[in-house]
Parts: sequence; C-alpha cells; structure tokens
Amino acid sequence: MYKQAIIIRNDLQMGKGKIAAQASHASLQAYLKTDEETRDEWETEGMKKIALKVDGEKELIQAFNAAKKRKIRAALIHDAGHTQVEPGTVTAVAIGPADEDEIDVITGKLKLL
Amino acid sequence: MYKQAIIIRNDLQMGKGKIAAQASHASLQAYLKTDEETRDEWETEGMKKIALKVDGEKELIQAFNAAKKRKIRAALIHDAGHTQVEPGTVTAVAIGPADEDEIDVITGKLKLL
Repeated sequence: MYKQAIIIRNDLQMGKGKIAAQASHASLQAYLKTDEETRDEWETEGMKKIALKVDGEKELIQAFNAAKKRKIRAALIHDAGHTQVEPGTVTAVAIGPADEDEIDVITGKLKLL
Repeated sequence: MYKQAIIIRNDLQMGKGKIAAQASHASLQAYLKTDEETRDEWETEGMKKIALKVDGEKELIQAFNAAKKRKIRAALIHDAGHTQVEPGTVTAVAIGPADEDEIDVITGKLKLL
C-alpha cells in the first residue's frame, strides 16, 4: 500500500484556508516528482493521504531530508508570504506517495494534524 | 493567468488535518482531469490556488455543477468517513486549474476559507 504524508508547521498558526492551500501545494508538487509507476499504483489504491504536524522549521526540514536520504520524493513548500507569514517561510512538506512502511519510518513519530 | 479553486464545506467543522487531506484530494483529482496544456501553463505560472468555503452540501454541488456546465474540469470529493464525518459525505470540490476569470465567474461570491 502506498500513501503520501503531508506535514504542516503547526507553530505558524496558519488559518484553515492557508493550511488547505499549503497542503495542496505540497501534495501536488511531491506527486509531480514521483515516478509514474508509483503514481499509478497510488491512484488505483485511492490516493491515501495522511496529514501530520510539526512544531517548527527544523523538524519540517528534518523530515524532508530524511525522505531525500531514503530516495523518496518530497516537496518543501516556501510560501510567497502575501498573507499570514513572512515571504520565504517554509510551511509544509509532502513525502511520497511511497510505500506506507517507508513513509512510516520517516514520519512515524509525528502527530496527526 | 490560471488558478485552481478549492472549496471546503465549512458546516462540517472538520479539523485542520481533515481539511488538509480533503483539500489535497480535491486539488490533485481536479488537476488529473485537466488537459495537459492547461496543467503545464499553470505549473509554469506557479500553480496558484485559492481556498474558499461553503456552508453546506447544496452550495458545494452547485459550484461543481457550474464548473461542469462551463466545461471546466472539477473534482467532487466523497469522504470514506473513517473519521469525523459520515461515509459518503461530500466534503470538498476543486475547480480547475483554468483561466482565473472563468474560475471567478463560478466562485466569485464565495468567501475565503
């Protein structure tokens, strides 16, 4: 089973709309980086996604780097900063889709958003 | 300029994680229905997204149908209902990416999420 993990910085206290947009940016960008075979399998299975949270930039970037180290495609979102956060702030990461167990190795300690 | 509108049912009072997941489902599914030329242009422009809200199922489906009527690709998300909402509940719609003015004709009266 494949899934995608979407990780949001909870410390920024973004509003619901901002979270929806940042999550969607991350999800789509990670999807676009993923190989076609994995994408197709994930789509067939129903595109399972899980939304998680971290409490700061450091933890977010750690998750992103852990994915890269394991050769799992991931996207790190920098916000343009028109609203709510400073320009360039990292707000979200999406990892995968990839094998669920592999995702869990990276994100297993993070709490649900 | 192209953009994608993501519309979330506010009356369901979903938590942040649920909103992030439903928005990402809708965003990606509408993207996958969109023609390649429009996708590419939208990606080049930075994949502008806007998150909006409605207060019930009726208004959500109206937006979805208005997009279909105008031949703009849209995705209507039914939740599996494992958490927070009843199985089959419609939770979100994404419209486009499509021309910003065309999106505004459909969603212009909706409030930001």
